[in-house]
Amino acid sequence: MRNIALIVSYDGTAYRGFQTQPGGGTIQDELERAIRSLTGTDIRVEGSGRTDAGVHALGQVVNFRTETPIPIEKWALALNGRLPDDIIVRSAHEMPEDFHARYSAIRKTYRYSISTGKFPEIFTARYRYHHYRPLDEDAMRDSLKFFVGEHDFTAFSSAGAPRKSNVRTIYEARLERDGGDLHLYLTGSGFLYNMVRIIAGTLIEIGEGKKAPGHIPAILEAKDRNMAGPKAPAQGLALWRVEYPPAYEAILSVDPAE
Amino acid sequence: MRNIALIVSYDGTAYRGFQTQPGGGTIQDELERAIRSLTGTDIRVEGSGRTDAGVHALGQVVNFRTETPIPIEKWALALNGRLPDDIIVRSAHEMPEDFHARYSAIRKTYRYSISTGKFPEIFTARYRYHHYRPLDEDAMRDSLKFFVGEHDFTAFSSAGAPRKSNVRTIYEARLERDGGDLHLYLTGSGFLYNMVRIIAGTLIEIGEGKKAPGHIPAILEAKDRNMAGPKAPAQGLALWRVEYPPAYEAILSVDPAE
Repeated sequence: MRNIALIVSYDGTAYRGFQTQPGGGTIQDELERAIRSLTGTDIRVEGSGRTDAGVHALGQVVNFRTETPIPIEKWALALNGRLPDDIIVRSAHEMPEDFHARYSAIRKTYRYSISTGKFPEIFTARYRYHHYRPLDEDAMRDSLKFFVGEHDFTAFSSAGAPRKSNVRTIYEARLERDGGDLHLYLTGSGFLYNMVRIIAGTLIEIGEGKKAPGHIPAILEAKDRNMAGPKAPAQGLALWRVEYPPAYEAILSVDPAE
Repeated sequence: MRNIALIVSYDGTAYRGFQTQPGGGTIQDELERAIRSLTGTDIRVEGSGRTDAGVHALGQVVNFRTETPIPIEKWALALNGRLPDDIIVRSAHEMPEDFHARYSAIRKTYRYSISTGKFPEIFTARYRYHHYRPLDEDAMRDSLKFFVGEHDFTAFSSAGAPRKSNVRTIYEARLERDGGDLHLYLTGSGFLYNMVRIIAGTLIEIGEGKKAPGHIPAILEAKDRNMAGPKAPAQGLALWRVEYPPAYEAILSVDPAE
């Protein structure tokens, strides 16, 4: 059996999230439909993780098993011809049999984007949360160091299926200004349900002066969702990059179709 | 009667063009609906020009007459609350009574955008024509000088309603590279029907080596549509800016709501 990985971008605006649902309308449904159309067989794809309704991706990674002999360099173009315009397969890779898009992932980066102009900018509005009231960027930046490291992020997570542990590690947190946009990049070992959106919502409250950067350690410590800020809207969020151990990255970083 | 101008951005993907049509679904219909909702009166807006189905705008200008006493600085926010997310009023301006969005315009700039990567980029795909085959940018740039100046652009126009003259002046033509994107900016006194898209399509043929830059003068001379290239797709086109005489620009360049 071949084990094929795809790096996939999507505009999540029109979808009910990544993971398949009864009634369809998800990214996974569209990918599986395109693969079925190409190979003639029913194939289940595994994503690096779910993204919620309305959330986008620049570099989602999925894998699936197939016996189809289609050469690896043909997959991306063939699938893009079978996918809607708002889902794009950037590349396809022949992976070792033990590669798993979710279990093999070691780091993920999300971007949360805020537009700060008086009104949204037309050509980026689908991918930004628009927030007009002034934001104190220095205060927002000052708070980032408190998120970095290994913490129990219970306070920054929506209630979901019970987990063994709510401890996660954030390796890097940065806030970049680009014209009227603010981009928050968070890189971590993994993220709890809604964690990036709740961190973004808390940062916005810090920017508005409703919370101080120094409050973050106490919020983490209390493990109380009510102490953190609101969940920021889905449309500002994008799964930016998923990273794997070096042996896999060596394969994923070279596009066989180039 | 007040004479109010709006500077309007829109994502034209979902619309049947700017100008009202039976059955609706146009930018003009949406603007008139929002103004009616705000003022309680039926008002006809006049645009600086039509844009076709699927064509976008950064800075379309419209004007309309009203007796509503709503202060000028309230209009943009109030209309944006009544418009769909893909139409954004950037500012509203109280104009002299003789200002007319179309008849007063002296220069218009359009942008035609081509993405040249192997696949479209997800966050700009709605606003680009994707063209993967290699393009000779130097040849494309070399051709631009032949369009600048006063010419009969019959060869670069689709048949439409008969006009008094097909002579137009292009003041500036430039091609800019931004990462994987090519942006063609054309500034002129006015443009014939489909003129920017046919110039863009001809430039692409020059980039592909199907035509030489030096062929442009002969194509202009022949006034034969069949000698020019194909009409490039709508989604790459945006009405970028409309300019007016200095007395009007002095008003339009200051946002009363700032």
